[in-house]
Amino acid sequence: MSQAIQDFYADKFSHCYGCGKHNPNGHQLKSYWDGDETVARYTPRPEYSGGVPDHVYGGLIASLLDCHGAASAAAFAYRAMNREMGTDDEPVRYVTASLKVDFRRPTPMGTELTIRGKLRSIEGRKVWVDLTLSALGEVCAQGEMLAFRFPQ
Amino acid sequence: MSQAIQDFYADKFSHCYGCGKHNPNGHQLKSYWDGDETVARYTPRPEYSGGVPDHVYGGLIASLLDCHGAASAAAFAYRAMNREMGTDDEPVRYVTASLKVDFRRPTPMGTELTIRGKLRSIEGRKVWVDLTLSALGEVCAQGEMLAFRFPQ
Repeated sequence: MSQAIQDFYADKFSHCYGCGKHNPNGHQLKSYWDGDETVARYTPRPEYSGGVPDHVYGGLIASLLDCHGAASAAAFAYRAMNREMGTDDEPVRYVTASLKVDFRRPTPMGTELTIRGKLRSIEGRKVWVDLTLSALGEVCAQGEMLAFRFPQ
Repeated sequence: MSQAIQDFYADKFSHCYGCGKHNPNGHQLKSYWDGDETVARYTPRPEYSGGVPDHVYGGLIASLLDCHGAASAAAFAYRAMNREMGTDDEPVRYVTASLKVDFRRPTPMGTELTIRGKLRSIEGRKVWVDLTLSALGEVCAQGEMLAFRFPQ
């Protein structure tokens, strides 16, 4: 598989609990291109349960959508500029300005989750991304993100 | 201090990584009444950092707002019914239908975070809650939640 989008983040920005390659305790989420969309896959450990042990807790769902969304925003921005990630000294990084999560149905534990990102629009330093989190072929949560380029 | 709202959750619903008293690995967030509002306080461990080590990661911010918001929804619903939590066999529980988080400024590490909930409205089994997360006296994130009573 090709390099993950997060692998291109500068070392100093790679400590995130959700997706930082330099955070040994975190989820180390990895996001990839998949055609015109982006995709990440993640199987939660049992401690990340919700109120009942067989469902994933809402905070993890938001976290996966957040980290995948910010990575997707960077990838979409690079592609819109006809640039390849990893070809400049100071990689473009995006941070979340706003995230909305709609929880459609309980997300089951013990199975791989698939997180997908789709570009809605780009305007200057702002990128809007539509997100889904699915398990066993069903969408369990939908997300909408607005991310800002950082630094400006 | 009085009992936390989460202490009234039924044992079978108390496994959440964010706020479950039966989840030894999780945050065990505790929410309390504070006048007409609700409040929770939490100091993140260093591993919950964002891209840079001195800021909190977005997923934790969403998680704290989510768990505090669901607890607040239950507390507001009880008060609207003029009932005390802990006085019935099957406690009322609320689950998140939708959560929006606006990240206003970076949330600093190494200090206590204060999460506040305010009732916006109640309609049947739906409760809308407005949320803030503050550090060092400044609001770092704002949230809006829609929670549903569960089971119906």
